[in-house]
Amino acid sequence: MTFPPLREELRGLAPYGAPQLSLEQAPVQLNTNENPYGPSEACVADIAAAAAEAARGLNRYPDREHVALREALADYLSRDVAADQEPISPAQVWAANGSNEVMLQLLQAFGGPGRTVVSFAPTYSMYPEYARDTHSRFVAGRRAEDFTLDVDAALGLVRTERPSLVLLPSPNNPTGTALEPEVVGVLCEALGEDGLLVVDEAYGEFRRSGTPSAIELLPAYPNLVVTRTMSKAFAGAGLRLGYLAADPRICDAIRVVRLPYHLSAVSQAVALAALRHREELLGRVDELRRERDETVVWLRDRGLDVADSDANFALFGTFPDRHAVWQRLLDQGVLVREVGPEGWLRVSIGTPAEMTAFREALDVVLDESGSK
Amino acid sequence: MTFPPLREELRGLAPYGAPQLSLEQAPVQLNTNENPYGPSEACVADIAAAAAEAARGLNRYPDREHVALREALADYLSRDVAADQEPISPAQVWAANGSNEVMLQLLQAFGGPGRTVVSFAPTYSMYPEYARDTHSRFVAGRRAEDFTLDVDAALGLVRTERPSLVLLPSPNNPTGTALEPEVVGVLCEALGEDGLLVVDEAYGEFRRSGTPSAIELLPAYPNLVVTRTMSKAFAGAGLRLGYLAADPRICDAIRVVRLPYHLSAVSQAVALAALRHREELLGRVDELRRERDETVVWLRDRGLDVADSDANFALFGTFPDRHAVWQRLLDQGVLVREVGPEGWLRVSIGTPAEMTAFREALDVVLDESGSK
Repeated sequence: MTFPPLREELRGLAPYGAPQLSLEQAPVQLNTNENPYGPSEACVADIAAAAAEAARGLNRYPDREHVALREALADYLSRDVAADQEPISPAQVWAANGSNEVMLQLLQAFGGPGRTVVSFAPTYSMYPEYARDTHSRFVAGRRAEDFTLDVDAALGLVRTERPSLVLLPSPNNPTGTALEPEVVGVLCEALGEDGLLVVDEAYGEFRRSGTPSAIELLPAYPNLVVTRTMSKAFAGAGLRLGYLAADPRICDAIRVVRLPYHLSAVSQAVALAALRHREELLGRVDELRRERDETVVWLRDRGLDVADSDANFALFGTFPDRHAVWQRLLDQGVLVREVGPEGWLRVSIGTPAEMTAFREALDVVLDESGSK
Repeated sequence: MTFPPLREELRGLAPYGAPQLSLEQAPVQLNTNENPYGPSEACVADIAAAAAEAARGLNRYPDREHVALREALADYLSRDVAADQEPISPAQVWAANGSNEVMLQLLQAFGGPGRTVVSFAPTYSMYPEYARDTHSRFVAGRRAEDFTLDVDAALGLVRTERPSLVLLPSPNNPTGTALEPEVVGVLCEALGEDGLLVVDEAYGEFRRSGTPSAIELLPAYPNLVVTRTMSKAFAGAGLRLGYLAADPRICDAIRVVRLPYHLSAVSQAVALAALRHREELLGRVDELRRERDETVVWLRDRGLDVADSDANFALFGTFPDRHAVWQRLLDQGVLVREVGPEGWLRVSIGTPAEMTAFREALDVVLDESGSK
């Protein structure tokens, strides 16, 4: 054995993550689907005050049950329940350090050796890593050519594989594709008591009008889990605060595997402060959706294929050598993400100025390659 | 299968954690080994300013590599290296949300199915949980009657079990027992390239004078990992900031299993601010050590058995019905911890006023039982 004695299946693997370049290296950062708008000074001041209050008791462990935060998140999520439904209760909510940790906890509790996790590619590239790191068997079905999910194919795979967990982002990353609401019901029925459907709504707030959240379906399906994050629409990527809504029995089960005091007192306090400023922090979502729709139209006008997007990014292509295009954009200071199926690139929706820089840089590349 | 489909081995298990009671329910909280002294207003103000600075960029993901924090932690750890040694370098340091998460990452990378983790009971009750949640085989050797570790017995177990990881707290929780420095070398030699020795120094700063830190031994043993936390001596339990020092190749290996952006921008900034105030935050350690030594003497004067302690707590007993003693102390407002071998209780070292309250309450209980 070579030193250090890393598990065999992990040797030689690269850690997950997009390149983190400085603003000097890449002034226009459109690669990690961040919200380009930072908080106001009023919001910053409230966050600082909340951190100070938490710091006064810093020698004490935080509330393991993060009750106040779960109350605030339940209140926030309740805006997405249907008019005739009960609001989301704090007992239905669980939070952790990013929806990454929420997802890991779900796989620790419900996946693991001898159990199967299903998703449908192309999709979020962390899903196989969660499965790998919990020793769950990972089975990837395929999406259709247009990146939508074929219900019958999905149902067939669920019936064959009998997974404990099905992970379905809506909208999907990196394609931006929203899930047809009827898919949720069909898959939850098929899974029954033996499996959970996790609808990952990390980008849920960016969905186009008329696309409902799976939150609406929670009363109908006890095996439905909806995950969210404050990283994207909420403009809080630096917070690392993810959460889920589900049947309270699912939250109870997660408690068995969560690390004690997993959410720091400061994280809880700062997330609460950010939730108090939700009007401001979410205030740019409509603008970003418009900018996204315009970007999609512009890319299609250039003769490119673009996946329909309900998220704050667009997947476009295809390029015979996508890495060369990625590099040429970066040479001009624009960092996009080389991710998804071969030949495609993903661009996050930034400010109008950033999107202008992206369009100008891409025009240069398209002119060079003569493919415009 | 019953709903929800929790893994079979997790069903019916209670989540880890001491009871969290309010200050109304238990005004004297001596159950989770917190430092009783909170930060000064100057420190609080600096933490708030750091949080504000982090909040200004809250829409951006944090530095995945937490470089500035690793530099500051390396600098802090370097006070424990021997006079003729190189300081600890940032490449030797890795941090996460509590040493819980550091430990989970170590077991994810180096433990897992088909691998064995060894520790020596009685010890920290999370160790079997880390093993369970990573599907590592857990083997618990036994400590001697006085809770020290018999080197030959430990060596025998390591040779028989060939573990990938040996977890050894120093001082041990819940007994307070420091590790003999020669044990570290003997076990590291025996493990060789196939296993890591993790010396968990969560309470390391409370060790009695003359007890060295295992940090000194890092240059000699590439398979040695020393973990620390800001929760205890550093008076930062609310921070949830744990870290390790080890060979840089071990830090590199952890990167493969860490969740991306696991440490929030706010956590990094606030931990950095706390490290700038280390003189103040650690300023009560000597006082707490004296209070601990006096508590041990007092308990022994009462005819009780007390384990020698290098930590900020004392394990005392034995009681025919320890739960009754725990409850009678709580009835008087003093919350201690019912943990460790049958018949023993653990008390954290608080302020002089808190320790007076503890002694008075325990005297009442001892009088009642006629066992004084």
